[in-house]
Order: sequence, then C-alpha cells, then structure tokens
Amino acid sequence: MPKLWEHTIASHRSAVQEAILDAAAVLVAERGPAGVSMAEIAQRAGVGRATLYKYFGDVDAVLSGWHQRQVTAHLRQLEDVWERTKRIDDVLEAYAFICHEHPPTAAPSLHREQHVDHARSHLIGFVAERLGDVRTDVPKKELAAYAVHALGAADAVPSKAAVRRLVAVTLSGLRDEPPR
Amino acid sequence: MPKLWEHTIASHRSAVQEAILDAAAVLVAERGPAGVSMAEIAQRAGVGRATLYKYFGDVDAVLSGWHQRQVTAHLRQLEDVWERTKRIDDVLEAYAFICHEHPPTAAPSLHREQHVDHARSHLIGFVAERLGDVRTDVPKKELAAYAVHALGAADAVPSKAAVRRLVAVTLSGLRDEPPR
Repeated sequence: MPKLWEHTIASHRSAVQEAILDAAAVLVAERGPAGVSMAEIAQRAGVGRATLYKYFGDVDAVLSGWHQRQVTAHLRQLEDVWERTKRIDDVLEAYAFICHEHPPTAAPSLHREQHVDHARSHLIGFVAERLGDVRTDVPKKELAAYAVHALGAADAVPSKAAVRRLVAVTLSGLRDEPPR
Repeated sequence: MPKLWEHTIASHRSAVQEAILDAAAVLVAERGPAGVSMAEIAQRAGVGRATLYKYFGDVDAVLSGWHQRQVTAHLRQLEDVWERTKRIDDVLEAYAFICHEHPPTAAPSLHREQHVDHARSHLIGFVAERLGDVRTDVPKKELAAYAVHALGAADAVPSKAAVRRLVAVTLSGLRDEPPR
C-alpha cells in the first residue's frame, strides 16, 4: 500500500475513533455511564453499529477509551502550565482544579481505576522532578505523592475558594518542617 | 415463632455469612479476586452451593460483602484508637498504616469504590469533629478531607519510616499557617 494511503486510512481511523469517544462523552454527561448503549453511541457518532464494533467491543471499552483520553488531556494541560510558568505551585493548583471540575465518578470501572493509578504515578514522577524549594527531611518522591493525594480532596470541596485553601494547606505541608 | 428461635436462626445466618466471607478472603489472598469461583468459595466455607447462593448472588457480591466488612473493621479500629488516646494524631497515623497495609487493589469493582467513598466520607466527618489544635484559616471539614486524602498516599510508600514521614508532612499542613 502506498504511504499516502496508509496515512489517509490512519487519520480516518483516528477521526472515527474521536467521533465515537465524543459521542460517548456527550451521552455519559446526559445520563450517566450506566444509561449508555452501543446503539446510541453509534447513532450519536454518526457511524454504523458494525463500524463501532470494529473499534470497541462493548460500552465499557468505549468509556474506558474516553476516560483514557481525558486523563491524557489533563496531564498535557499540567505540562503546559509548567512550560508556561515553571512554578510547581501553579501546576499543583491546576491539578486541584482539574480534580474539582472532574470528580472521578463519571465512568467507574476496573479500567478507569487502572488509568487513574497510572496517570497518578506519572503525575507524581512529574511533580517530584520539579519540586523546588521544599522541606529537606522527606524525599521528593514522597512529598510529590503526598501533594497529589492531598489535592485529590478537591473533588468534593464546595467552592473554588475551598480549592485554593486546600492548595495552601498542601503547600504548607510541603514547605514547613514538622512543628515538634 | 418464639423469640429464642428467631435469635438462633439470626446468629446461624450470621455465622454462615462470616464463614463465606472468611473463605473468600483466603481465596482472594491466595490467587487474587479474578481467580475465585462460587464453587470454590462454597467448598472452602464448608457450605453447599445452594446455601451460598442464598446469601450471595455471585462472586462480585461475595467480594463486595468481604470488602464492606473489612472497611467497617478499619473504621472501628480508628474509633478504638481515639477512645484509647483521644489524640487525633494517633488516629491519623493509624489510618496511614491501614492504607499502607491494605492498598486498595484487592477487589476492584463499582461496589468497592462505593464502599471506599462512603467510608472515606464517614472518616472525614469523624476526623473533622475531633481536630483539636489546628490552623484557623481553613474550615475543619476541609482540613479533615485534606488529611484523609493525603494519608491515602501511604498505600504506595516504600516503608514504615516513609509512612511516618507522610504523617509528619500531613500534620504540618494541618497546623501551620501558609508561609506567604
């Protein structure tokens, strides 16, 4: 097959896949993950059911793909914040707002949990490498794990002001030596 | 039915249920949650399959019951620590060690996640009511949510010393005003 063709097919494949994931996202937002069927996803994405099944075996696989895409987008967003400001505090605040705006209840499944664990490990490594002026009595990897977990509490706080307070509390844990 | 009979039947039921959950726990520990069947659970628990199905509809329901029991036991353990020492620091340290010794990978399922969320809310309320000498710029409910999430990082730290460092970092976040 000529190169150009391969490329064209690849980008068609990817456009179809994106359309399916977009459709699933809209349906999940409308009625929750339990109320979504393959037939509806196909219809909303504007593809035949046979085509849909070529990409995804079942609803869980679609939701899993959608969730994976979302997690990847969030990580990229945090990398962008770092590139822009080079301040880890900004990255951590951005992460807290992501947790606040996307509480992890949209697509509960084993896959989702694996994505979340994987993304969290990645994020902890990313943060650990960029922690600047922090307490010296604790390894940076452990401080990064602490911060990422602590900021996860943003998923259930009542307001943006509360997210900022959580960030402040978390940062003071990162910076101050223990008070004993 | 006379009262005594009712009581006898109720405690028999509960003993059978406990035996089933114990058997499931052993099997999960041996081969992970994916490798467990209803037939094996019945055999290990010393009950007939028909009896097992009277209590639990499928393996997931057994694992869910087992997990629920475990979560309840952990909460009770933390309440005991509080009753004994009346020091919230001890409760938080005990929680960190529970997270460290029981990382949440044993029985991944939607039910498990609901138990964990529910138990975490309960724990946050419990901690919030007992926080003594903490920073005053953040509501206690938010500080409790911060602490419980932060200590969840203990599930992946490498040692008991690291658990204690995590507790120290988390406590300093609770106590110190932000450094700006």
